[in-house]
Amino acid sequence: MDQQWFDLQIEKLSNALAKQGLQLELPQITLRRNNLAVDENIAKYIDHTLLKQDATTAEIEQLVAQAKTYGFAAVCVHPCYLPLVTRLLQDSSVKVGTVIGFPLGTNTSDVKIYECQSAIALGAEEIDLVLPIYALKNQDFKAVYEELKSIVEATDGRVVKVILETGLLTKEEIVQACLLARLAKVSFVKTSTGFGWGGATVEDVNLMWQVVADDCQVKASGGVRTREDALKMLQAGATRIGTSSGLQLVQGINGDINGY
Amino acid sequence: MDQQWFDLQIEKLSNALAKQGLQLELPQITLRRNNLAVDENIAKYIDHTLLKQDATTAEIEQLVAQAKTYGFAAVCVHPCYLPLVTRLLQDSSVKVGTVIGFPLGTNTSDVKIYECQSAIALGAEEIDLVLPIYALKNQDFKAVYEELKSIVEATDGRVVKVILETGLLTKEEIVQACLLARLAKVSFVKTSTGFGWGGATVEDVNLMWQVVADDCQVKASGGVRTREDALKMLQAGATRIGTSSGLQLVQGINGDINGY
Repeated sequence: MDQQWFDLQIEKLSNALAKQGLQLELPQITLRRNNLAVDENIAKYIDHTLLKQDATTAEIEQLVAQAKTYGFAAVCVHPCYLPLVTRLLQDSSVKVGTVIGFPLGTNTSDVKIYECQSAIALGAEEIDLVLPIYALKNQDFKAVYEELKSIVEATDGRVVKVILETGLLTKEEIVQACLLARLAKVSFVKTSTGFGWGGATVEDVNLMWQVVADDCQVKASGGVRTREDALKMLQAGATRIGTSSGLQLVQGINGDINGY
Repeated sequence: MDQQWFDLQIEKLSNALAKQGLQLELPQITLRRNNLAVDENIAKYIDHTLLKQDATTAEIEQLVAQAKTYGFAAVCVHPCYLPLVTRLLQDSSVKVGTVIGFPLGTNTSDVKIYECQSAIALGAEEIDLVLPIYALKNQDFKAVYEELKSIVEATDGRVVKVILETGLLTKEEIVQACLLARLAKVSFVKTSTGFGWGGATVEDVNLMWQVVADDCQVKASGGVRTREDALKMLQAGATRIGTSSGLQLVQGINGDINGY
């Protein structure tokens, strides 16, 4: 994927959007070097995540306690646990994160907006939203853009991370989704839900970073289970890691220190 | 699971509900014979289902056309496709079905209610709702009951099917969920989402039927891919089959007929 390939993607998307009645100025993409410098203290990059549908109150309490202990960026839980998590994180710098339209992205935009507003009322500070994958597959780029834009507006400056489910997308579709997300002014593009349709790859993370780097960040999620995996994702452009293995990732550090 | 075991489950749930401040009169369960008589023309039992998150408009159009051709009971699609399906089924006896809180059941009750109302406004006639599995796992039976009751009220007499995700539940939890669903006056209890946490088994379908038979019906879903499977589920007590293999199930019939 060279400069010419990226330029072609932008031209094609721009034409398609114009045909769908949206005259938007798409950003240019300038290819960058890989292997970014990464702080070895990775706790601050981690969204400590528990999204099993049968997770209990006790498990969520443990998740929050661990996030406080290690200083993770955020916890990420389902909306049903927001009241609990918001209360437990009241005086903490750990952010309250939740998921919207999860994990399929097939709710209507109207319902996703309502769910965002409800989540914010319950204390959510960061919103991980599933892309309307079906609309992208229909090449209805206007619908994708308008949903993302309406969510960004409805969340009123909060961090919005758009989950692409990269395992279901072609490279072209990943670029399209990233460009539309960037235009809609989301904070992050995110690889995967972690629900079994493929997880983060270094290649996809880097591709996403190449497309959005000037305006958005990248969250790598799905199958990131070791410190080594996490460092590779960060070097490829990610600045946030979503994982249910946060403890193993930071206990990698402890292991090194104690190993003296 | 004999009569004594069922009586014990009812007593335990009744006590737990009382402790949670709900004085409800639980129904008795009377064990029944299995191997029900089943009409061999099974199309009318089938919810023709397509819930892939990357399903396209063309695939949904094909699904609806097939449902009309074979006279299936309903089509079951995501809310995002309700406008299309409602339009296509305008003059058909095939019902418009959709899924709510799908596939995890971890949205708040408030959001699930809003999603139901939105779906109904878009033409949904049957609502397949995912149980708040997390609440059942927390043994918060009051929360489970109240959510189901509020959904039944919000859907105003429409068919509500509660998906238990039986693959994640113990036999005790299946009975608890069925009793609470029956008390809340839902139309169906349904086994599974079909999203990889185990599907319908004859044993679970029969257990559910034993618990709800007087008041609700049973929908078997998840992994029902052959005519033989479907007939077993119907004989065990199901009166609806959710499947993405509806065509194979009825083409079993065609095959027999053409085989003369």
